[in-house]
Amino acid sequence: MSVINQPIRLGMVGGGQGAFIGAVHRIASRMDGQYQLVAGALSSNPDRARASGEELGFEPDRIYTDFNEMAEQEANRPDGIEVVAIVTPNHMHFAPVKAFLEAGIHVICDKPLTATLEEAQALAQIKPVNNARFLLTHNYTGYPMIRLAREMVAAGKIGKIRLVQVEYLQDWLAEDVSNKQADWRTDPARSGAGGAIGDIGTHAYNLLRFVTDLIPAQISAELDNFVPGRKLDDNAQMMLRFEGGAKGMLWASQVATGCENDLSIRIYGDKGGLEWSQKDCNSLWFTELDQPRQQLRRGGPAPIDFEWPIRVPPGHPEGYLEAFANLYQDFARILYGEQGYTVVPGMSDGLEGLIFIQAAIRSSQNNGIWQDLNILEEPFTSF
Amino acid sequence: MSVINQPIRLGMVGGGQGAFIGAVHRIASRMDGQYQLVAGALSSNPDRARASGEELGFEPDRIYTDFNEMAEQEANRPDGIEVVAIVTPNHMHFAPVKAFLEAGIHVICDKPLTATLEEAQALAQIKPVNNARFLLTHNYTGYPMIRLAREMVAAGKIGKIRLVQVEYLQDWLAEDVSNKQADWRTDPARSGAGGAIGDIGTHAYNLLRFVTDLIPAQISAELDNFVPGRKLDDNAQMMLRFEGGAKGMLWASQVATGCENDLSIRIYGDKGGLEWSQKDCNSLWFTELDQPRQQLRRGGPAPIDFEWPIRVPPGHPEGYLEAFANLYQDFARILYGEQGYTVVPGMSDGLEGLIFIQAAIRSSQNNGIWQDLNILEEPFTSF
Amino acid sequence: MSVINQPIRLGMVGGGQGAFIGAVHRIASRMDGQYQLVAGALSSNPDRARASGEELGFEPDRIYTDFNEMAEQEANRPDGIEVVAIVTPNHMHFAPVKAFLEAGIHVICDKPLTATLEEAQALAQIKPVNNARFLLTHNYTGYPMIRLAREMVAAGKIGKIRLVQVEYLQDWLAEDVSNKQADWRTDPARSGAGGAIGDIGTHAYNLLRFVTDLIPAQISAELDNFVPGRKLDDNAQMMLRFEGGAKGMLWASQVATGCENDLSIRIYGDKGGLEWSQKDCNSLWFTELDQPRQQLRRGGPAPIDFEWPIRVPPGHPEGYLEAFANLYQDFARILYGEQGYTVVPGMSDGLEGLIFIQAAIRSSQNNGIWQDLNILEEPFTSF
Amino acid sequence: MSVINQPIRLGMVGGGQGAFIGAVHRIASRMDGQYQLVAGALSSNPDRARASGEELGFEPDRIYTDFNEMAEQEANRPDGIEVVAIVTPNHMHFAPVKAFLEAGIHVICDKPLTATLEEAQALAQIKPVNNARFLLTHNYTGYPMIRLAREMVAAGKIGKIRLVQVEYLQDWLAEDVSNKQADWRTDPARSGAGGAIGDIGTHAYNLLRFVTDLIPAQISAELDNFVPGRKLDDNAQMMLRFEGGAKGMLWASQVATGCENDLSIRIYGDKGGLEWSQKDCNSLWFTELDQPRQQLRRGGPAPIDFEWPIRVPPGHPEGYLEAFANLYQDFARILYGEQGYTVVPGMSDGLEGLIFIQAAIRSSQNNGIWQDLNILEEPFTSF
Repeated sequence: MSVINQPIRLGMVGGGQGAFIGAVHRIASRMDGQYQLVAGALSSNPDRARASGEELGFEPDRIYTDFNEMAEQEANRPDGIEVVAIVTPNHMHFAPVKAFLEAGIHVICDKPLTATLEEAQALAQIKPVNNARFLLTHNYTGYPMIRLAREMVAAGKIGKIRLVQVEYLQDWLAEDVSNKQADWRTDPARSGAGGAIGDIGTHAYNLLRFVTDLIPAQISAELDNFVPGRKLDDNAQMMLRFEGGAKGMLWASQVATGCENDLSIRIYGDKGGLEWSQKDCNSLWFTELDQPRQQLRRGGPAPIDFEWPIRVPPGHPEGYLEAFANLYQDFARILYGEQGYTVVPGMSDGLEGLIFIQAAIRSSQNNGIWQDLNILEEPFTSF
Repeated sequence: MSVINQPIRLGMVGGGQGAFIGAVHRIASRMDGQYQLVAGALSSNPDRARASGEELGFEPDRIYTDFNEMAEQEANRPDGIEVVAIVTPNHMHFAPVKAFLEAGIHVICDKPLTATLEEAQALAQIKPVNNARFLLTHNYTGYPMIRLAREMVAAGKIGKIRLVQVEYLQDWLAEDVSNKQADWRTDPARSGAGGAIGDIGTHAYNLLRFVTDLIPAQISAELDNFVPGRKLDDNAQMMLRFEGGAKGMLWASQVATGCENDLSIRIYGDKGGLEWSQKDCNSLWFTELDQPRQQLRRGGPAPIDFEWPIRVPPGHPEGYLEAFANLYQDFARILYGEQGYTVVPGMSDGLEGLIFIQAAIRSSQNNGIWQDLNILEEPFTSF
Repeated sequence: MSVINQPIRLGMVGGGQGAFIGAVHRIASRMDGQYQLVAGALSSNPDRARASGEELGFEPDRIYTDFNEMAEQEANRPDGIEVVAIVTPNHMHFAPVKAFLEAGIHVICDKPLTATLEEAQALAQIKPVNNARFLLTHNYTGYPMIRLAREMVAAGKIGKIRLVQVEYLQDWLAEDVSNKQADWRTDPARSGAGGAIGDIGTHAYNLLRFVTDLIPAQISAELDNFVPGRKLDDNAQMMLRFEGGAKGMLWASQVATGCENDLSIRIYGDKGGLEWSQKDCNSLWFTELDQPRQQLRRGGPAPIDFEWPIRVPPGHPEGYLEAFANLYQDFARILYGEQGYTVVPGMSDGLEGLIFIQAAIRSSQNNGIWQDLNILEEPFTSF
Repeated sequence: MSVINQPIRLGMVGGGQGAFIGAVHRIASRMDGQYQLVAGALSSNPDRARASGEELGFEPDRIYTDFNEMAEQEANRPDGIEVVAIVTPNHMHFAPVKAFLEAGIHVICDKPLTATLEEAQALAQIKPVNNARFLLTHNYTGYPMIRLAREMVAAGKIGKIRLVQVEYLQDWLAEDVSNKQADWRTDPARSGAGGAIGDIGTHAYNLLRFVTDLIPAQISAELDNFVPGRKLDDNAQMMLRFEGGAKGMLWASQVATGCENDLSIRIYGDKGGLEWSQKDCNSLWFTELDQPRQQLRRGGPAPIDFEWPIRVPPGHPEGYLEAFANLYQDFARILYGEQGYTVVPGMSDGLEGLIFIQAAIRSSQNNGIWQDLNILEEPFTSF
C-alpha cells in the first residue's frame, strides 16, 4: 500500500462518454488508489472530448483532442502524466502506443495490440524512450484463481499436460444488432480482420497460454459469420497442437444464445486436472489422480504456497473489476520497482495475439489446413 | 402397464459374472416388469456360463455356452425367448446378432453395432426372419430431458441450429490400468479400430444426431493415445460441418482427470439455446433470445406438449438406469404394437456409428483432412 | 447376487392402479431380481383390485380385496408370500401390519408407521410370529452418499457434532389442489394429525437421525397451514436440542414455490462439515478444518473404507429408485441371513417418527414451548 | 457520473494499517471517483495514526489521533471533509457518530450502529447540525440482484409472502483463533453483548427486512457458544413471526466448517418464490407457480422494469466490493440531491438492528420464549 501517498499520474486516450472499456480502465485504476487520472484525449470530437474531460475533473489545458499533442505536452510538463491508458477501438491502438512510448511515457493498452499483424510487428520494433514500459490488458490473467492455476501447473501439480480446452461464449451478437459497441466490433475497418476471433478468441488464447505455458505449434480453424450481412466472423472453433504433444480445442462465439461472457478453461495432465469458469470465478477445481475433486476457493487453503492477489477474504466474491485492477496494481509495482507479481501480459503477448488471429483466418480460408504459428517471443514479461 | 402380466421372455448373450454392461441390461429389463430373463449363453467358458446362469435362476437346459445353439433351440421351444440381449465385447456382436435375427428372435444389442464397418454393412443387409426387430442401446437417448430437447428442436423452439458442441469425458484410463473392462476396451482385436472414439465417441455422436437431427457432412479429427504403450486412441477431438451450414465440435476422452462420465451437449440456434449435462441429468437449460435462462426439470412444466417418460415425480432424481430402462420399455411397446415412444436407435444408427468411427480414424491418419461421412440411412427408426 | 435364483415371494397391500408409492415399491422390488410379486390386496374395491392384480399377472386366487383374508390364506399356502409390502394411506397401516406380522409374514411398510402414536405404540408391542421381520421404508437412508455420511460421522471424520440443519421443501401444495395424492395427504382422517410434518417432516427427521445418531432431547416447533381451508399443516419449522449440546433446525414445507423434493442436510462438527442435497444426490461435500472443500462422488475415492451400495460406476447417476431398491436389497439380505448393510429403518424408527409428530404438534399448539421427545428405543435395527 | 469532477471530501475514523473493513470502505469510496479521502483519525495510537495517514497521502495537519479534534477542525476548515466514514470496532461507533453529526458532517458508519441498544436509542435522538445525513453500511443491500428482489417483491411478483429463510454461515471461528479480527469480535467489551448475532446475524436480519419489507413481530432464539472459553455466541438460530402471518427462520453461524461467508435468502409467496445466495451473487432464482425456474442474471432480462446498479455487463461478475460501492454511490447521489436509488440503510435500521440483537439474547436467555420486537421506525430511508 506504500504507493498510494503519491498516486501515479495517469492519462487516457479514448474512453469518452458512452465507452465501455474506458470506464472499466478508470475503475481499475482507482480501486487501489495508486493512480490519479489527470489528462486525456478522450475523443477526437472536440465537444465530446471537453465534456468527458470536465466530467472527470481534468484541468482545461489537459483536455486534448489529439493524442500526439497530448504526448508531446505531457512529456514536457513537470507534472505530466507518467502512464497513459489506450482504450480506443483496435485500429486506433498503433499510433498512440507508438507516440507515447516514444515520448517516454509508460503505456497500458487494451487488447488486441493492433488491428493488423504488420502494425503489431512494427510496434514490437520500437525502442521506447526512457525505458517506458508496456502493459496489455489481457485482464483475465488477473483473476486470483487463474494465477493460482498457472502456479500449480508450473509446480507440476497436474504433471505433464495432455489436453487443454478453452472457450469464450457470448450471445450478444446472435442477432443483427446495432449500437456503439457492436458497430465497431463488427466493422473490419475498425476491428481488423478478425471478429469473434480477435475480440474474444484472443482472450481465450491468451488465457490458455498464461495458465499452461504450452507453446502452440499449429492450429486448424473454422471461422463463420452466422448472422446474415455480418462482415466478420461471429464464431471461431479450432483444434490446436502444442509442442511436446499436447492437444487442445478453442471455441469463441458471439452467437451462443444463453451465454453471457462464459470464459472457461480445462486442463488435463498425467497427474491431475484443473477446471475454471468465469461464471464461478472464485473457485478452481483441482483433481489429482484417484483423489476426490477439490473446490479450491479464492483466499482459501491451496495446494502450493501462494500469495493471494485479493482484497477481501474468502466468501466475499471478487469479480471482473478486481481482476482488471490487479493488472493496474501489478503495473504500479513494476513502475515503482517493487516486489510483486510481474508476470503480466506485454508487447510480445500482443504480437502473439495478432499472429494467432492471422493464422486462424488463414487456416479457415484454406479449408482448415494446419497452420504453423511460429511463436518466437518470450511472453508474459512486461516490455 | 398392461404388458406386465405376460412378461416378454428374454435371453442374453454375454454378461456373465463380473460383466458391467450385462448387469445394466438386466436391471433395465427388470425395472418395469416387462421382461423375464430365462435363458442365456452368458459365457463361452462352460463353468462360468453355468454358474452365472444358475445364479440368475435359469433352467439347466437353458444355460448355453454357444449362442448358435441357443438361437436354434430357443427358436424351436414353444416357450422360447422372444428377445435376446447381446452384451458381449464389440468383436462378438456380429455373429450373434446375425444368428438371432435369422432365427426370428428380436435383438437388443449394445453399442457399437460391430467392431468393423464391414461387419456393420453386412448386418444391415440381413433380412430378419419373422420381421424380427432390432434395438441398439445408445442409452443416453433414453433420458427424459434429452427426449424433451429433441422434441423442442423439432418444434423449432431454438430456431435454425448454428452450433453444436458435445463431449464425453472420462478419466478411468488416465493411467495404464489393467482390469476386465480396460483390457478388452484397449485391445484392437476385441474393441475394433477405435478406442475412445468407439467406446464413448459414438455415444456423443449419437446423442448429437438424436437431439438435433442435423446431417453431418464432414469431420476433421485428431485421435491420440496419451498413455504410453496403449494401442488405441484414448482421446478424440474433432470439428464437424453439417448440411445446411451448422458447425460443431466433439470431444471424447478417457484421460480427462477429474471427469467421470461427463457427457454433455450444447446447441445454439438463431432463436435460442439448449444445454444438458449428465452430471445434472434431470435438468435442461433453455434460453430464448433476450429472455432469462430457464432450468427445465424432469417432469416439470415444459415449453411444448410432452409426455414425460418418467417413473417418479420431479425432484426425485432418476438416472442412468431409468434412461436405459426407457429403451427396454420402448422396445416392449414396439413389440406389442402399442402406442409409445418409438424413436429408438436401430440398425441404421449402428451402421452410422461405424461410418463415423472410420471417418474419424481416416481423418486423423491424414493430418486432419476433412472426411465426408456420406450418411445415407434414415436413423432412429427401429429396424 | 446369489439370491436371484430363488426370488422372494412378495405380496402387496394397497398400490392399485393410479397409486404413486405402490408403483415405487414394485420398481424397487424388481430392480435386483430378488423379489417376485405374486399376490395382493391392491384395493378394497373389488373391481379395481381385480384389474390391478391382473395387470400385474397375479393368479386369480391370489387377487384379494381383504388383507386379513390375504394374510391368512398366504400363510397357509406352501407357495405363500414370504414378505408383504404395505403401501396404503397412513391410517390403513396399523391393521395390515399387525395381521401379517401375526401371520408370520415379513413386512415392508411405507412411512409413517401409523396415523397415530397410540397405534404405533400398539404395533411396537406385537410379538411377531416366526420371528417375522419389519422394514420401514424411510428410503432416503438408502442413498449411497447418505450411508457414506453416516459412516464418516461414526468414524469421527467431522469430530463432535455441533450443528445440524435439515430441510425438505416441496411446492406441490402451494395452491388448493385436489387429486388422489393431495386428497388423502391433506385429510386428517386418512393422514393422521400431521400434514407436512408427517408426510415429509418425518423423512427429514429420520435422515437427521440416521446420519448423525444424535439423540434429540427437545423440540420447539411452529406448524402452519397457509392455504385457506386446509386442515393439516403445510409448513413446519422447528429448532432442536440434542443430548450432548448440539443444536439443530428442521424445515418441512409443501408450499415453497420452486422446490420439488428438495431434501438436504448439513452437519457441522468441531473437525469438519458434511453437506448433501437430493438435488445432487451423487455428491457429498466434505470439508475438514483448514482444508479445501471436497466433492465426494458416489463410487469414487472416499476418506474411509466404504463398501459402496451401487449398481453403476461414478458419473452414471443413480437416483431415488436405486436408493429405494437398496432397502429392498438390504431386507433380502437380512431375510437370507447374509452379510450386508443391515442398518435399516425398523419398528422403533416408526414409533419414534410418531413421537416426533406428536411432539411437534404439541409444541406448536403451546406457543412453541420446548417439548421433550423421550426417545427410548434403539433405532435403525430391523425389528 | 456528473459528480466526479468535484469529488466529495471524505474523512475516516478507524481503519488504520491491518484493518479489514477500513480498507473495504476505502475501495468502495474510490471505485466511482466520487470521493477523495483527505483526512483521518485512523488510530488512537499516534505512531500508527501517522504512518497510516502518510501512506494514504494525507496532509500532516489532517492526520488526527482524536476524532473529536478532527470533527472540530474539519468542520472549521473551508476545505474540510464533507463526509466521514466510521470504521472502528462496535463500541467505538457511538461517540464519533455523535461528534460528526453534531459538527454538521455527514456520516457513513459500519454496522452494527452501536454496541448497546441504549447507545443506539441515544443516537436516534440526535438532531444533526446542517441536516447532516447518515448511512449505515449494511452492504448486502447493495447487491444488484438483492435490489431486484426487493423491487420484485414490492411489485407483487411472488404474491403475499408466506415464508422467509435467511442464513449467514462462516467457519472462521470454528476453532479458538486469535488475531486482530477475531479478538475484538469475540470480546463483549468491544463487540457488545452479541457475537455472531451482532456481527453477521444483523446482516441476515437486515437483508430479510430489505428484501421483504415484512414487519417482524416476534422471535424465538437459541444462542450458543460452541468453542470452549468463548464469551460471545458463535451460533444463533431462531424462528420468526411476522405481522400478517408469515413465518421465518434465521441462522447465523461462525462455526459452520466449510462455509466462508455463505449468506443466502429464500422467500416463498403464494404466487412464486425467490432464492439468492452470495456464492452466486450475480444470479437470482425466480419461480412462478407452475412455471419453470428462471435464473435471472445481473444486467440481463428481468420480469419488471429495473434500472440496474451495475458497472459491467452480464457475465463479467461483480461482487462484494461493487455492492459496497453502490452504497457509497447512492449516498453521493443523496448528498448531491440527485435522482437515484435512495433506499439505503440509515439510522432507524441501525436502531432496529440493536433491538433485534437484544431480543435474540433475551429470548435465548429465557429458554426461547417468544420475544416481541416492537419495531416502530420506518426503515431504509437515510436519516
